[in-house]
Amino acid sequence: MKAQLLLAAALLAAPALAADPPTKPAPSPGEIVAAAPANEWIAIAADDLLVMDLTPGAWERPRRVIIQLIPAPFSGPWVANIRTLAKAHWWDGLAIVRAQDNYVVQWGDPDGEDVARARALPVGLPVTTKDCYTLSQIPSQCNSSGLDELEAWSASAEDNDDANTWHSRDAYASWTYHLRGWPMAMQQDGDTYEWWTWPVHCYGTVGVGRDLSPDAGTGAELYAVIGHAPRHLDRNIAVVGRVIEGIEHLSTLPRGTEALGFYKTPEERTPIVSVRLGTEVAGLPAYQYLSTDSEAFARYADARANRRDPFFIVPAGGADVCNIPVPVRRVPAPGQ
Amino acid sequence: MKAQLLLAAALLAAPALAADPPTKPAPSPGEIVAAAPANEWIAIAADDLLVMDLTPGAWERPRRVIIQLIPAPFSGPWVANIRTLAKAHWWDGLAIVRAQDNYVVQWGDPDGEDVARARALPVGLPVTTKDCYTLSQIPSQCNSSGLDELEAWSASAEDNDDANTWHSRDAYASWTYHLRGWPMAMQQDGDTYEWWTWPVHCYGTVGVGRDLSPDAGTGAELYAVIGHAPRHLDRNIAVVGRVIEGIEHLSTLPRGTEALGFYKTPEERTPIVSVRLGTEVAGLPAYQYLSTDSEAFARYADARANRRDPFFIVPAGGADVCNIPVPVRRVPAPGQ
Repeated sequence: MKAQLLLAAALLAAPALAADPPTKPAPSPGEIVAAAPANEWIAIAADDLLVMDLTPGAWERPRRVIIQLIPAPFSGPWVANIRTLAKAHWWDGLAIVRAQDNYVVQWGDPDGEDVARARALPVGLPVTTKDCYTLSQIPSQCNSSGLDELEAWSASAEDNDDANTWHSRDAYASWTYHLRGWPMAMQQDGDTYEWWTWPVHCYGTVGVGRDLSPDAGTGAELYAVIGHAPRHLDRNIAVVGRVIEGIEHLSTLPRGTEALGFYKTPEERTPIVSVRLGTEVAGLPAYQYLSTDSEAFARYADARANRRDPFFIVPAGGADVCNIPVPVRRVPAPGQ
Repeated sequence: MKAQLLLAAALLAAPALAADPPTKPAPSPGEIVAAAPANEWIAIAADDLLVMDLTPGAWERPRRVIIQLIPAPFSGPWVANIRTLAKAHWWDGLAIVRAQDNYVVQWGDPDGEDVARARALPVGLPVTTKDCYTLSQIPSQCNSSGLDELEAWSASAEDNDDANTWHSRDAYASWTYHLRGWPMAMQQDGDTYEWWTWPVHCYGTVGVGRDLSPDAGTGAELYAVIGHAPRHLDRNIAVVGRVIEGIEHLSTLPRGTEALGFYKTPEERTPIVSVRLGTEVAGLPAYQYLSTDSEAFARYADARANRRDPFFIVPAGGADVCNIPVPVRRVPAPGQ
């Protein structure tokens, strides 16, 4: 049947062939992003960047990791803590203490005193992580600014059939989507009918290390995902950002040989030279992300799900939310 | 409503509390695997192992990578090629030529002559990858041995409601499941109603590098996944195995700085000392995988999808097929 349909299509198309221009290969996702117009890119504020410098790596190459912090209302009390800690130069001289393959790299105080010391700083009170993701009942300890705007955005996005970035074939939630540059999930509580929405754990996601609940962590100990998306951490741990440049300096670190990938000896740890807010770093380039509400992003997401560039034989017909990484670039020079 | 139901449950449970033993925390996935009985573990034949030794790494640690080759009918013509190449010591003295972050590490001939040289060896004829995954019409160039047995297994598994390892909430296929220790996907062709099933790309999956189709690669150039599951490669590239030990020796390699993560200079490449079939390696431990038809695997998969161990607050309610890695162990000493 398939062969017959293809034959019929070929016959119908034949008379037009002579007049048609030669067929161009379908653009790859990268080509779609490269062609996106300047007004579909959104600036990331320097105050939303965390810049971590490690000691030099192989071949004496510098190792700088750039993290974008998540905005309200998902920032909870943690991102304010992290800004306070960065301004206090809290992480300087500390180290990467854990590298677990296909999971996370974690940094903070190697002597385990970080939570106690951090709590002596004027940081906000932690709350149970999941409570910060209940749309209409975010507790006062979370940061609920921007919530009204989010609800309006959400309602308009659901009405927009062209958005092409809402997906229901997800193992962890009713829906996945992109919100202002962040991969998100959404689900309705079966008992209360309350809607929950939360930032998901993808490759490069940065979260807050914590002890057993109700400890939700202060932000003094952070981790970055260096493997397959550990989506089971969603709602269980606070997502506070994502690595937008230099993730390879974390993903290539030697793995720790103790339980959970902790290093056995202090010599194995990679020292942190400094962690600074972007506003404190001289000469830092500006960064932009491709608006996830843009037409270019919708085409990019569709091309990720249905690869038509020449290497591919069978388009997948879908892509999970972590396989549609949001494009980020350094701001091009004027005129580009 | 939720609070009232919880209260009611607590009242009903109260009279029995005094007689109940103290509640144990729910077992973690790892604890379930550790408690699996010996007869639920299946031996991996030494002939199905590929042992790759790299030059020593950081701190002069040895770097050995153990790959399990996929069985028929999914082995296509490629696994026979790979055995031929390993017996000819084909890869000895070649190198890791590519390391692309959150994607793949690739090895073969750094001078790009590998395909031509490999074809001078008595290896089978490549076929278009996707054709080897059509259940009832596998071409003769693919390896269709074991297909009848597979169909019988598949029919019985679909009837088994307890298996708990078939999932439909997947972005890339109608179903995912586990077949004899391998993560798989299944889909019906919309035109022919033919069922397709194929091994999926997860972290650690090994596949066959190739040029543009119809070149399907010989197996002389291989890659391993070191990032989030690139499921868009499914059916487009032949999956021939997975790393069961030592993936960290690949995932920590410095990333190449050229396009697609290729290394710029020969000095950056990591030399391959040797690649051997397990049958050629003296003193190699024996390996087993947890039967994916076993009761322990079903409980493990459920625990991965619904983490109830004390660290977790909200069970996810699902897990994607690549987030349920099949447990593999070295064979314990007799008596264990």
